Amino acid sequence: MTGLRTDLYEIRMAASYLRRGMTAPATFSLFARKLPRDRGFLVSAGLADCLRFLADLRFTPDELTYLADEVHLPDEDLAALEALRFTGDVWAVPEGRVVFADEPFLEVTAPLPQAQLVETALLNHVTFQSVVASKAARCRLAAPHAGLVDFAARRTHGLEAARAVARAAVIAGFGGTSYVAAAREFGVPAVGTMAHSYVEAFPDERAAFRAFAEDFPDATVFLVDTYDTLHGVRTAIEVAQDLPADRIGVRLDSGNLGELARATRRLLDDAGLSGARIVASGGLDEHALADLASAPIDVFGVGTRMGVSSDAPSMDSAYKLVEYDGNPVMKLSVGKLTAPGAKQVHRGAPGRPDLLSLRDEGTPADREPLLRPVMRGGVRLADPEPLSAAQRRCEQDLRWLPEQARALTGPTPLDVVWSAELTELTEALHRSIAARNDLAHA
Amino acid sequence: MTGLRTDLYEIRMAASYLRRGMTAPATFSLFARKLPRDRGFLVSAGLADCLRFLADLRFTPDELTYLADEVHLPDEDLAALEALRFTGDVWAVPEGRVVFADEPFLEVTAPLPQAQLVETALLNHVTFQSVVASKAARCRLAAPHAGLVDFAARRTHGLEAARAVARAAVIAGFGGTSYVAAAREFGVPAVGTMAHSYVEAFPDERAAFRAFAEDFPDATVFLVDTYDTLHGVRTAIEVAQDLPADRIGVRLDSGNLGELARATRRLLDDAGLSGARIVASGGLDEHALADLASAPIDVFGVGTRMGVSSDAPSMDSAYKLVEYDGNPVMKLSVGKLTAPGAKQVHRGAPGRPDLLSLRDEGTPADREPLLRPVMRGGVRLADPEPLSAAQRRCEQDLRWLPEQARALTGPTPLDVVWSAELTELTEALHRSIAARNDLAHA
Repeated sequence: MTGLRTDLYEIRMAASYLRRGMTAPATFSLFARKLPRDRGFLVSAGLADCLRFLADLRFTPDELTYLADEVHLPDEDLAALEALRFTGDVWAVPEGRVVFADEPFLEVTAPLPQAQLVETALLNHVTFQSVVASKAARCRLAAPHAGLVDFAARRTHGLEAARAVARAAVIAGFGGTSYVAAAREFGVPAVGTMAHSYVEAFPDERAAFRAFAEDFPDATVFLVDTYDTLHGVRTAIEVAQDLPADRIGVRLDSGNLGELARATRRLLDDAGLSGARIVASGGLDEHALADLASAPIDVFGVGTRMGVSSDAPSMDSAYKLVEYDGNPVMKLSVGKLTAPGAKQVHRGAPGRPDLLSLRDEGTPADREPLLRPVMRGGVRLADPEPLSAAQRRCEQDLRWLPEQARALTGPTPLDVVWSAELTELTEALHRSIAARNDLAHA
Repeated sequence: MTGLRTDLYEIRMAASYLRRGMTAPATFSLFARKLPRDRGFLVSAGLADCLRFLADLRFTPDELTYLADEVHLPDEDLAALEALRFTGDVWAVPEGRVVFADEPFLEVTAPLPQAQLVETALLNHVTFQSVVASKAARCRLAAPHAGLVDFAARRTHGLEAARAVARAAVIAGFGGTSYVAAAREFGVPAVGTMAHSYVEAFPDERAAFRAFAEDFPDATVFLVDTYDTLHGVRTAIEVAQDLPADRIGVRLDSGNLGELARATRRLLDDAGLSGARIVASGGLDEHALADLASAPIDVFGVGTRMGVSSDAPSMDSAYKLVEYDGNPVMKLSVGKLTAPGAKQVHRGAPGRPDLLSLRDEGTPADREPLLRPVMRGGVRLADPEPLSAAQRRCEQDLRWLPEQARALTGPTPLDVVWSAELTELTEALHRSIAARNDLAHA
């Protein structure tokens, strides 16, 4: 079921184009009009789901029946939609790369009805997943030496979102996820220990810890704050005396995590458990991680605030027609002017502004083009890659990123310079559209 | 595939309980510890997906293989998980009802391993969907006389989220959705017109409007801001002269929507099109809707900010063990103390505080119990209800809601009073746990 996974207007427009034979190639560009507040960069994510959606696109008989009965599309439209597959080309920035406003995440070139129909799904996947990957990357930057794991599944926007969040977090440098379905699908470590309810289900904390150590001797992390954190640490130490120190740990989930971690570390070390790890969780985000930079915490479980990108749960993304039937197009809406033509982003050495140009301008010798062809004639040009490839790209790009774009508060994104050709085309087309539409103000 | 749609620690704990024969009934309570900032109430949503998840719960052979190979669970655990189904009872507040902090959305009573395993999914569905329904209800309150439709699909957190958002918005009083898959599934109107790309794909705006009017004479809403809004309105009026006025409309999607709506209304009226509707969209939320209260706008398309609940994309929800094997339990974690025992919420006349009690205390004659039995022995007690039932409840509860809880800025939630029995049990159990765990401070 993919055909109806779109907004109604996409179907209406596609039907209208099909009736009129407006099936010439159209290029749409998907980009962020501006970065969310407190973001100095974005991490590209969501492409894999986009390509899967495009490859699977079709209207099932049930869906066509719905369009006949409820949207009142005539038989000629239904026949055309029934035959419709995605046969276009896609250029895209690989997942894990850092991008900025105005830089396309991807560009689709396909017969106009196809390129239009897929707008909703492509925008959705890229917007959501890039927003979360960007938030996760900020967490990664805030705690460069600690292990980070995704604990967000319980409060993401649905369980499909939990899957995508785990994936985006791993791209950004997280080492594992608590969400088992995602760990399995993406081949990353599943992580997790015990909840407060486990402790409460036993007569007392000591009994619970003993049972857990007995059942999971290979990965025994005791949740110590159910009743009183440091008391819980002492109980864990007693229970752990007979276990190998490198396989045990304690998890702190409430209170002043920095102070508690220091006191816990002392208690563990004094008990000869210097190999035991400290895991911290509970309401963490990049700012909390930065505040805890000096605390002796080995692993952070980062949950809700990363998984919903709490301070910027979306961004001002757009999927805009930039060329139809060989002609560049643009819109002039107040505050939403778009630049025409298929594009390329050229990246240079650290500190140099990115260069945004028309796609066919060519890349200067000392720069690298970010957009690559990933689908041609509706066929993927490569097998799906392992997540580790995107993770490596992200790690490299985060190192490349200028200090002021990495800043957790008040970051400044890298500048994006437009090529002379792109600027000239934009201005000339603005004048031409104004003339064609009798706009006095232009 | 449902078994792995959970956090790893749920599976670890369930396995441990199963090994130890800790399968006595456990009751977990799902509630908000506190309301998000700027929320005076919550609208309950997500129950339908919870019940479906519980009814479908099972581990497939593939999932069991994963747990054997990657989580290293022994055969005895796998056999127990393979046989596991949800056989418990659920009490819940029906969808669409208004609730406050500490009031359970739902309570599960089931053998401990089952009740534990489902935590992640239940928390996820209720948290996400209630947060969005609450945001949508605030939009409904801000624009009581306009039509509201859901335009969020392109920027929700995945397309499954788009489905749930459309549903939550309808519960809160929206009249339709642009997301076709959801419109079809829930039997609500699919809405949508044209995008800027449609206008741009034609030689000029007039040609685009003519084509659209020809193709969709029954629902012709012209998007007028691609190049210049009022110029676009005049073009729409020319094209619309031959169409029935009650079937046409214009959509404003950028600029000062209030001013443009007034100017547009004048142009339409002067042209004899007083029956033509004005639709507005673009970055709307409850505050923008309130600011536009006096503008002549008939329908608002509310998108991203509602669909991600932009100012409160999650809430501090919890799924807490409150009773095991007949004994009430609680945790004492700093800032996260929970109240023991299965509960009931009793609602009174407008303005009266809600009463939170133990479930078996009985309801005072002048109050109504909010939690109802919805599943017994793993079997739903009623067929899934039409969405209109939840919508009606929400409409009634929003009318019941005190003015200060409805306020868009700085709202004050209704008070929730604890019964004497619940207070006494909480205090007595606190003392008893402290004694059992040798806590000096209690």
